[in-house]
Amino acid sequence: MGKLKRNERIAAIVKILSDNPNRIFTLSYFSDLFQSAKSTISEDIVVTKQAMEKANLAKIETMTGAAGGVKLIPITTAHQNKEILGEICSRLKDKDRILPGGFLYMIDVLYSPHIIHSVGEVFASQFDYKDVDYIVTVETKGIPIALMVAKAMNLPLIILRRENKVTEGSTVSINYVSGSSGKIQRMSLSRRAIKPGSKVIIIDDFMKAGGTAKGMIDMMKEFDAEVVGTGVLIATKEPEKKIVNDYIPLLILEEVKEEDEQINIYPNENLLNLI
Amino acid sequence: MGKLKRNERIAAIVKILSDNPNRIFTLSYFSDLFQSAKSTISEDIVVTKQAMEKANLAKIETMTGAAGGVKLIPITTAHQNKEILGEICSRLKDKDRILPGGFLYMIDVLYSPHIIHSVGEVFASQFDYKDVDYIVTVETKGIPIALMVAKAMNLPLIILRRENKVTEGSTVSINYVSGSSGKIQRMSLSRRAIKPGSKVIIIDDFMKAGGTAKGMIDMMKEFDAEVVGTGVLIATKEPEKKIVNDYIPLLILEEVKEEDEQINIYPNENLLNLI
Repeated sequence: MGKLKRNERIAAIVKILSDNPNRIFTLSYFSDLFQSAKSTISEDIVVTKQAMEKANLAKIETMTGAAGGVKLIPITTAHQNKEILGEICSRLKDKDRILPGGFLYMIDVLYSPHIIHSVGEVFASQFDYKDVDYIVTVETKGIPIALMVAKAMNLPLIILRRENKVTEGSTVSINYVSGSSGKIQRMSLSRRAIKPGSKVIIIDDFMKAGGTAKGMIDMMKEFDAEVVGTGVLIATKEPEKKIVNDYIPLLILEEVKEEDEQINIYPNENLLNLI
Repeated sequence: MGKLKRNERIAAIVKILSDNPNRIFTLSYFSDLFQSAKSTISEDIVVTKQAMEKANLAKIETMTGAAGGVKLIPITTAHQNKEILGEICSRLKDKDRILPGGFLYMIDVLYSPHIIHSVGEVFASQFDYKDVDYIVTVETKGIPIALMVAKAMNLPLIILRRENKVTEGSTVSINYVSGSSGKIQRMSLSRRAIKPGSKVIIIDDFMKAGGTAKGMIDMMKEFDAEVVGTGVLIATKEPEKKIVNDYIPLLILEEVKEEDEQINIYPNENLLNLI
């Protein structure tokens, strides 16, 4: 490429860092790419850092030493959480979403790239994932959200399946009891998907009693992996005591009243008061 | 936020545009955000455009008129395709991936946020999606790729399910014949998921005979929707004549030799020779 001016180099650096959150780029990488001295790149990165932090768009971490590098860490403020989660709530409160049995139609929200990109960044701001190896979810509705969390944290995604598949090689399967329906369900995962001794964060779209999350935790034990965090987009208020203890919901669904056509859903207050 | 300098405004603009590809931001949006004159923002955007295009990182489109706005369009060059697809091939060629029956273990690649983010941009560069309304896929392995394509194109994602779900309301189900196994399979979709008269692009991870893609095309007919493109990450070389005609594969899988432990997979040449 032609020689870039400072402004242009900064623009290019931001694009590359934004597309690859939590990935370390060395000064040499940029210095080769732009045919510029490392000292010049260092100055560009100082500006990038100031801009991202002044505008509350991300955190920029620089590492010194032989390697010397930089990475972008997605972060949302309490104010941004309020906006993101408020928008989702207002969309989900539409009474046309009420389905027979008091279920809520929400796949359009769960599969909207724009919305769940933000959800991924909200989750990334809630967990300490420094030592985490994988994001784990179970098919199907939670996959897009879990992928966006994995992308924000730069971690591989693991999807537990309902059935064994020939394309996964030898698998481990477990049965678990769905807490809300009491039905016995099954999940399976390829033996080679997770390295023993790993740490994982579980992400799902919805939690009622917590049976599915418990199933995932049990499955992780089969792989000698430790669950260090659980996040769900929506948790129901009742039952207040879930089968799992530690989990972070972004939204609380208190009630869907079929007769009155009312949906009572609101953001988890803990996320609106940080800093 | 505090007043940003030109450099910092450009950095912030690039971050916002990169996180929201194909989404139009008005000059007023940035002018309010940065408390700067629209003429100043216009100049910032000129620099942003030059930087993205000089460094082959994206296309920036500006729209004049009352609304007046800017959007970032992800684009990959033939050279970038070669690099991205070459890296995926070299990962998939590892003989340890060969499973009984000549299947390939590849979920770690299909679920790697970093890899499939690039795959999403490669697909976005291959299709004309100006008038497209949805990206459509079928659960499960293709979901992450389809989501990344949907994100790059700023389109909602539709996931066809294998079974009816209470959380989707009334559904349309069809049976289709899996081209390779000859087995009859089923897919279903919520009635309200797609507006009649829509245009869609189908994205999946793998195509052998094309039966699943044909099933998705048939399903779209039930919704009076038109399939204007089909993309798959990997298509097998044999059978050369698939059930569907028009599709864009990124990679061609020619052969998996179990005895010789050889995997013959390579990029679709058409993607390496553009411009």
